[in-house]
Amino acid sequence: MPTTIDDLKLKVKDFCEERDWDQFHGPKDLAIGVSTEAAELLEHFRFQSDEQALALLNEPHAREEIEDELADVLFFVLRFSQRFEVDLTKALLRKIEKSGRKYPIQKAKGKNTKYTKL
Amino acid sequence: MPTTIDDLKLKVKDFCEERDWDQFHGPKDLAIGVSTEAAELLEHFRFQSDEQALALLNEPHAREEIEDELADVLFFVLRFSQRFEVDLTKALLRKIEKSGRKYPIQKAKGKNTKYTKL
Amino acid sequence: MPTTIDDLKLKVKDFCEERDWDQFHGPKDLAIGVSTEAAELLEHFRFQSDEQALALLNEPHAREEIEDELADVLFFVLRFSQRFEVDLTKALLRKIEKSGRKYPIQKAKGKNTKYTKL
Amino acid sequence: MPTTIDDLKLKVKDFCEERDWDQFHGPKDLAIGVSTEAAELLEHFRFQSDEQALALLNEPHAREEIEDELADVLFFVLRFSQRFEVDLTKALLRKIEKSGRKYPIQKAKGKNTKYTKL
Repeated sequence: MPTTIDDLKLKVKDFCEERDWDQFHGPKDLAIGVSTEAAELLEHFRFQSDEQALALLNEPHAREEIEDELADVLFFVLRFSQRFEVDLTKALLRKIEKSGRKYPIQKAKGKNTKYTKL
Repeated sequence: MPTTIDDLKLKVKDFCEERDWDQFHGPKDLAIGVSTEAAELLEHFRFQSDEQALALLNEPHAREEIEDELADVLFFVLRFSQRFEVDLTKALLRKIEKSGRKYPIQKAKGKNTKYTKL
Repeated sequence: MPTTIDDLKLKVKDFCEERDWDQFHGPKDLAIGVSTEAAELLEHFRFQSDEQALALLNEPHAREEIEDELADVLFFVLRFSQRFEVDLTKALLRKIEKSGRKYPIQKAKGKNTKYTKL
Repeated sequence: MPTTIDDLKLKVKDFCEERDWDQFHGPKDLAIGVSTEAAELLEHFRFQSDEQALALLNEPHAREEIEDELADVLFFVLRFSQRFEVDLTKALLRKIEKSGRKYPIQKAKGKNTKYTKL
């Protein structure tokens, strides 16, 4: 059962419309939603070494919490795209193409340097 | 051409593996990726009224920038899920179910109150 | 009793050193600290209108929570500056001067436009 | 010349009032300000190892950029406190006391564990 972006968008739309939440979901507040949920994801790894961060993903309880935060970020990304008619597939492919120009393989391979300094 | 989450994950995987970036993409750094891109999305609406925020989406240039930031957030969400084997569809549906219990329709309808205060 | 930045830095230093936390407080993790606490501050205003956001500051319980989050951000800013010898006063005054050049009074007065578009 | 928090608040106040920016600086937008500047600070350390993050602070150009971001966060923290009459010193000391109860020295010493799991 391969799920499409559109299927997920519809789920999110239904959830919000059943609760009559369009009135609170302007672009600014949805961007706040994305940002605050992203910080909750990050908070799990705060003060943890890279090894500890990785290990968390093998603890079932911590993994579920982390997956929940990732899902919350996705929820608001989908909601933003549904409310304001962003074609996420198209936007992602266009962005990947732009990033490919900023980070050409030959220059960027094996490097963690920002494109402004490549 | 309905695109699946798995199609997009594969695009993101290819982009990063061609650049040999697995070594930089642990969970902590990818969570930083999600969070910093989310802030760039939000930055577009800073000090703007809700009306101005909405109007930005009707200016082609601003809209493209905003869509790019949304795509960047999605990029890192997909990359995180690909690297650490998170089934995003399953995670999202499970989270929506949990949220449904926190925000039952009858209590939450038309309200912007946090579930802890409902 | 006017408190100096240095007094506050010392309080933060003592708190962390008593707990032997230098080992966890590298620049990356302290920046994560600043960022996640900032998101917790912002979370209070999510989905709230500007009027509701303002009203929260008049409810004693909500105000205390908001002040706590602001204090948490300041805590990590002070800790970062203490650990890595940033003179905050100097840094702030230098930044204000730079911002003054980006936002000259005559151009910026009464406008919420980003300097790149002024 | 030990600088007090109140001195810095006044600098920030003057800068904003000269530009007639009170109208844009409600609590929600100032919290967005804190959060987006915090992400810009964090962005410097993205995909960098802890060693690389530390090394950045020894490169004069990178250090100045990082100090600027830290100053931007402080700017909005001061502006928030000035606009909405938060006594930052009092708020910080109260928060440190609360944190002391969450993280008693004997339990928290040498540990990077969140208080909910201590």
